[in-house]
Amino acid sequence: MVKRSYPEDFKVREDSGITYAKGFKAAGLNCGIRLKRKDLALIYSQEVASACGVYTTNQFKAAPLWVTEENLLHSAGKLQAILVNSGVANACTGAKGLQDAWETVSYVAEGLHINKEYVAVTSTGKIGEFLPLEKMKKGIQEAIPRLSISGGTEAAEAILTTDTRKKEIALSFDLQGREVRMGGMAKGSGMIHPNMATMLGFITSDIAIDTSLLQSALREVVKKTFNMVSVDGDTSTNDMVLLLANGLAKNAFISSCDESYKKFLKALFLVAEFLAKAIARDGEGATRLVEVEVRNALSDEDAERAARAVIDSMLVKAAIFGRDPNWGRILAAVGYSGASIDTEKVDLFLKEKIVENGQPIPFSKQEIREYLDSSEEVQIIVDLKLGEGHATAWGCDLTYDYVKINTQYN
Amino acid sequence: MVKRSYPEDFKVREDSGITYAKGFKAAGLNCGIRLKRKDLALIYSQEVASACGVYTTNQFKAAPLWVTEENLLHSAGKLQAILVNSGVANACTGAKGLQDAWETVSYVAEGLHINKEYVAVTSTGKIGEFLPLEKMKKGIQEAIPRLSISGGTEAAEAILTTDTRKKEIALSFDLQGREVRMGGMAKGSGMIHPNMATMLGFITSDIAIDTSLLQSALREVVKKTFNMVSVDGDTSTNDMVLLLANGLAKNAFISSCDESYKKFLKALFLVAEFLAKAIARDGEGATRLVEVEVRNALSDEDAERAARAVIDSMLVKAAIFGRDPNWGRILAAVGYSGASIDTEKVDLFLKEKIVENGQPIPFSKQEIREYLDSSEEVQIIVDLKLGEGHATAWGCDLTYDYVKINTQYN
Repeated sequence: MVKRSYPEDFKVREDSGITYAKGFKAAGLNCGIRLKRKDLALIYSQEVASACGVYTTNQFKAAPLWVTEENLLHSAGKLQAILVNSGVANACTGAKGLQDAWETVSYVAEGLHINKEYVAVTSTGKIGEFLPLEKMKKGIQEAIPRLSISGGTEAAEAILTTDTRKKEIALSFDLQGREVRMGGMAKGSGMIHPNMATMLGFITSDIAIDTSLLQSALREVVKKTFNMVSVDGDTSTNDMVLLLANGLAKNAFISSCDESYKKFLKALFLVAEFLAKAIARDGEGATRLVEVEVRNALSDEDAERAARAVIDSMLVKAAIFGRDPNWGRILAAVGYSGASIDTEKVDLFLKEKIVENGQPIPFSKQEIREYLDSSEEVQIIVDLKLGEGHATAWGCDLTYDYVKINTQYN
Repeated sequence: MVKRSYPEDFKVREDSGITYAKGFKAAGLNCGIRLKRKDLALIYSQEVASACGVYTTNQFKAAPLWVTEENLLHSAGKLQAILVNSGVANACTGAKGLQDAWETVSYVAEGLHINKEYVAVTSTGKIGEFLPLEKMKKGIQEAIPRLSISGGTEAAEAILTTDTRKKEIALSFDLQGREVRMGGMAKGSGMIHPNMATMLGFITSDIAIDTSLLQSALREVVKKTFNMVSVDGDTSTNDMVLLLANGLAKNAFISSCDESYKKFLKALFLVAEFLAKAIARDGEGATRLVEVEVRNALSDEDAERAARAVIDSMLVKAAIFGRDPNWGRILAAVGYSGASIDTEKVDLFLKEKIVENGQPIPFSKQEIREYLDSSEEVQIIVDLKLGEGHATAWGCDLTYDYVKINTQYN
């Protein structure tokens, strides 16, 4: 079953986040984009940090993502501040949208007295509206003096939209006698789908590491975590995950894929997986976190296809909301996923094995119903018995509240 | 807007169906698979008909589909009877499922005194359950003496599952002085997605035509009609469309892609499009038929990708249920569809043009809301302004009732 247990060599803190690593401060506040809820977050590293990002695959990529990508290119992978606003996505806003995003970069750079190239910006909220620049300028001026270690939680709140709770986590681990820290925060909720949905993730660490290793670690981890989350199959215009490492842990600089790198990769995976699952658990209207694990596919790619098809299936999602062990819908999704399967080999587990070699075996429907009813986290395992490919995807059930939220969101 | 107008050279009857063409009879009744609703349909042609089918792409293809495909292969494209049952899908039923399907073929062939190879069988309903053979045998015995022209409507009722209304249509047209007739019926409702969803379609005609032309006509038409319908993105194990032509119209035999063939193709398109739209309109819980037309894509395939992404988007579907002109969600879906687009060229029409060159233009939100509220059929047009590719897709809104139906279906 899904458990929140962590490997022994990592000390995990679920009550901390983006400011846990040395030298990181943050602030979050309401600057008037939204009525009352916090809508502006600022993250700052006292030292210039190595940094990298992954971005939405949606062709309507929002203005701030273009700006952040360009800055990271010009600074050769360095960042010192991140500005996030919620309420307005600054997507589908053309040349003015780009200009506005650059304007906010300037406000942050001037206020913090740092290089413009070291500023990342990102937005989430309504598509097709322009940023309220004056409000944001004032907000940034107010945020800068408030930057603090305790501001991490405020920041985690300010990036939310229809999310019902903040998502943050932090951990520390030892690298040859030096304590290395890492923290992260995310927002999700709707328009969530593989390949960066309206999903924002920010991860900071004080580790000292080569920028290109940082980039490859992020890509590898995002592929198996953030990109395996789906709430509704809609990929947003604004998704982005940023990773910063400022070196203040003073560990021996990591410049190759050695044991230290592997430990860092494991830490990054833990943080990203925690945030990805938190996003799925808090999917719009969700009552259940659903985890789909596909084992023994011909390849990892096939396993991913099958896992995503099951997690995306509206019929499977509705069945879980109905606490209905409808294995037929799960098999059907595997069948149209595009993954290679032998229909006479597929096993399916829902609490226990209920399908063997593509056909149902006797099980107590009542018991599985009770499992679905009493478990906040539902695990579906599909064993294709063909090869060694493996993947896990996370999502949630489809409820009346999903329809309500997305009918009334405006 | 979506209108039910038909080209002048076709006389359309929305009150008739599968028995409109000469020589076709049908019957529909309850044989006890389901509690009260009709669950068995039989269609019979007094002459052996040229026939062809298209089948689900789901790898868990149900037993009756294998059997029907094999029969059509052995008979070199000839059929004389079709048996359909609802309530049990005979999918994921292994060797016994196949044997059972062959058994029902035998009952029909013996009862009608026809060659076994001329019998098609198909099933829709719950996955993983076996056919109740004794009940079906009795049902077939009862259906045979009831075969009649007026039995078409009974048959159209017997194939339904969660559908709220029967779907049938018929038409006639002139081929060099001979009247040719065509009729069809379908069932849809849930698990509906491009590439043959839980969608059954049966089309009969008295036209005299070469079997291979019949097959290519069906493939061409299904691609643009049945395969462009999506209710929930789930492709079923049991989808099938069958087309029969028994030659009783005595038209000059069609053996090439001449004018007569083109007229037949047009008739087939009208019938299939009507049925496809009827399926979308009657999607589980639907209050609106949604038509998405994509114009001027780089290719037809790109247009299809974009149209399907919009029609599949849970967020777009929920917005339409909320009567919300949320163009941002529509653009976002086009943006992740995989179709080539120039984001600065895309126009979007919802009653009127509301997005030009990728950005919103001023429109009265209230007026569009009223359009969405007062129109049973909502039309979305996306103009990519890149090439000449074109596609239309049909679907429906996402409502509380969709969740209700699929939570309680059991």
